[in-house]
Amino acid sequence: MNRGILALVSSVGCMSAGSLQSLADAMHIPHLFIQRAPAGTPRSSCPLTSRGRQDDYTLFVRPPVYLNDVILQVVSEYSWQKFIIFYDQQYDIRGIQDFLDKTSQQGMDVSLQKVESNINMMITSMFRTMRVEELHRYRDTLRRAVLFMSPATAKAFITEVVETNLVAFDCHWIIINEEISDQDVQELVMKSIGRLTLIRQTFPLPQNTSQRCVKHNHRINTSLCDPKDPKAQTLEITNRYIYDTVLLLANTFHRKLEDRKWHSMASLTCIRKNSKPWQGGRPMLDNVKKSGVSGLTGFLEFSDNGTNPNIYFEILGTNYGEDRGRGVSKRVA
Amino acid sequence: MNRGILALVSSVGCMSAGSLQSLADAMHIPHLFIQRAPAGTPRSSCPLTSRGRQDDYTLFVRPPVYLNDVILQVVSEYSWQKFIIFYDQQYDIRGIQDFLDKTSQQGMDVSLQKVESNINMMITSMFRTMRVEELHRYRDTLRRAVLFMSPATAKAFITEVVETNLVAFDCHWIIINEEISDQDVQELVMKSIGRLTLIRQTFPLPQNTSQRCVKHNHRINTSLCDPKDPKAQTLEITNRYIYDTVLLLANTFHRKLEDRKWHSMASLTCIRKNSKPWQGGRPMLDNVKKSGVSGLTGFLEFSDNGTNPNIYFEILGTNYGEDRGRGVSKRVA
Repeated sequence: MNRGILALVSSVGCMSAGSLQSLADAMHIPHLFIQRAPAGTPRSSCPLTSRGRQDDYTLFVRPPVYLNDVILQVVSEYSWQKFIIFYDQQYDIRGIQDFLDKTSQQGMDVSLQKVESNINMMITSMFRTMRVEELHRYRDTLRRAVLFMSPATAKAFITEVVETNLVAFDCHWIIINEEISDQDVQELVMKSIGRLTLIRQTFPLPQNTSQRCVKHNHRINTSLCDPKDPKAQTLEITNRYIYDTVLLLANTFHRKLEDRKWHSMASLTCIRKNSKPWQGGRPMLDNVKKSGVSGLTGFLEFSDNGTNPNIYFEILGTNYGEDRGRGVSKRVA
Repeated sequence: MNRGILALVSSVGCMSAGSLQSLADAMHIPHLFIQRAPAGTPRSSCPLTSRGRQDDYTLFVRPPVYLNDVILQVVSEYSWQKFIIFYDQQYDIRGIQDFLDKTSQQGMDVSLQKVESNINMMITSMFRTMRVEELHRYRDTLRRAVLFMSPATAKAFITEVVETNLVAFDCHWIIINEEISDQDVQELVMKSIGRLTLIRQTFPLPQNTSQRCVKHNHRINTSLCDPKDPKAQTLEITNRYIYDTVLLLANTFHRKLEDRKWHSMASLTCIRKNSKPWQGGRPMLDNVKKSGVSGLTGFLEFSDNGTNPNIYFEILGTNYGEDRGRGVSKRVA
């Protein structure tokens, strides 16, 4: 930090992000924050991040968490009145408070249940402690379920409930997670019975293909550069955003270097004897905020409040009663 | 910290406690942690506090959060099958995960709704957005409610729902919070209609009155020393625990000072040139753990896992259809 930091790119959880945010504000360093959720579980909005203050140096590279809105839209379309939400231990259920507010106002019956890390033991103990009529009622509730958990936990959980006959072919389950890989989709469809709906984030191809990864200014591996390329598909979402963030910073900095006025206005090195903070942070931040890049996450840009507004979800689904290896239909929300 | 710290007494929230816990472990300082909940809202267990490790220097002065068990017992006794939980913005709903697990297994219909800080606006917008049949159903749900919030928010919320006719005389509401003062009880009863049940922590008088505050060894203000004294009643729970913690530390240290063996074994000052940590922390911790004191919170002691096992709740209640100024019945759980 002695030589100065032009910008900080972080890919961490909410707790660490809070500290980095304070640091960036104190040091006047632009901070590009790429939220990472623990162990593949869905993201919850970071609590208590003060937004929109004048002296705020953090830009949120990942779009806000829209899972509340998306899942409300989907269960409303299916006209679900009674269902259960399963979540894994890593998921912070404060993330679905808004969704729960709306369901309670609309009179839906929503149960919430945590899935323990030892799924087998959890189900065994349920069978041991629940009375027969409770089990019957519980089985009925399980016909409609929403899963907020990592794909790995979802696979293990579905395997267990299918094996223990807690669900039958008349069930319809929804799995929602920004990050579900193609392979996860295949495996989840294979393991489940009944109907399965999968909701995940998707990255559209830029319509203007010449824009892709700004190829003409920089040499970029073409296979990485196409968001629909199989190699790019295997990238984790956070890594896609890191890639695009670095690209955005490089472009912005490159433009800055060509701007003679900037050189004189804000030197890249701090004046050591001066007690004032570095003057270059705010102009750099403003420039990043005004920039945009078409990369692996679609078009990365920032709205006035410092968040990336561009997010798309796709809804994949199977139908009831089809055989293994059944077709997966697809639409984009 | 240069002169050494014999023990650390903290009364903070979960976030800060985590840092202090790490510090205490690193410096080998006994840490007596008195959990404080934000703005009078009910406590939730601090997440991720690693317990029972060999090198753990933190003792939990406040007993574990039992609100899950207490509220489950109470709604089961009342045979509630359908109710709504209201919580304020400060309450961390991860605190009732276990309760929600049990209710969903027992087939109860539990709705969850956050109470915004601007209660009037929240209710106005509900009236604006909800359809007539939704409002009817919602009113029906509100007949049975559990409130996880600060007494101040509970008062404001009850006032609003009564004024807007969202509840009628056939409602039964439960307010659960370790900390509800006598004055809060009076005001909540005055503001509510229908039936009201209040659950709060209570501090029993020691049966052996000569034990009280160890009066014979120390001079203690007698009015503070009696947990049932009106002056003591106005003390916040955390302050009661701070008082007892300091008393416990003073007693332990006093006993230690009289023990010649301890003087030679572990000096009170660090040996500066030695890179080893202070050797006195562990014996001090063990001694505090073995001690006990009868104070403002009843009997303060620690079980093997470093938590205080002594907690009592009282359940206060009114009946339906009584006039203002109605009697409050009482029992201890």
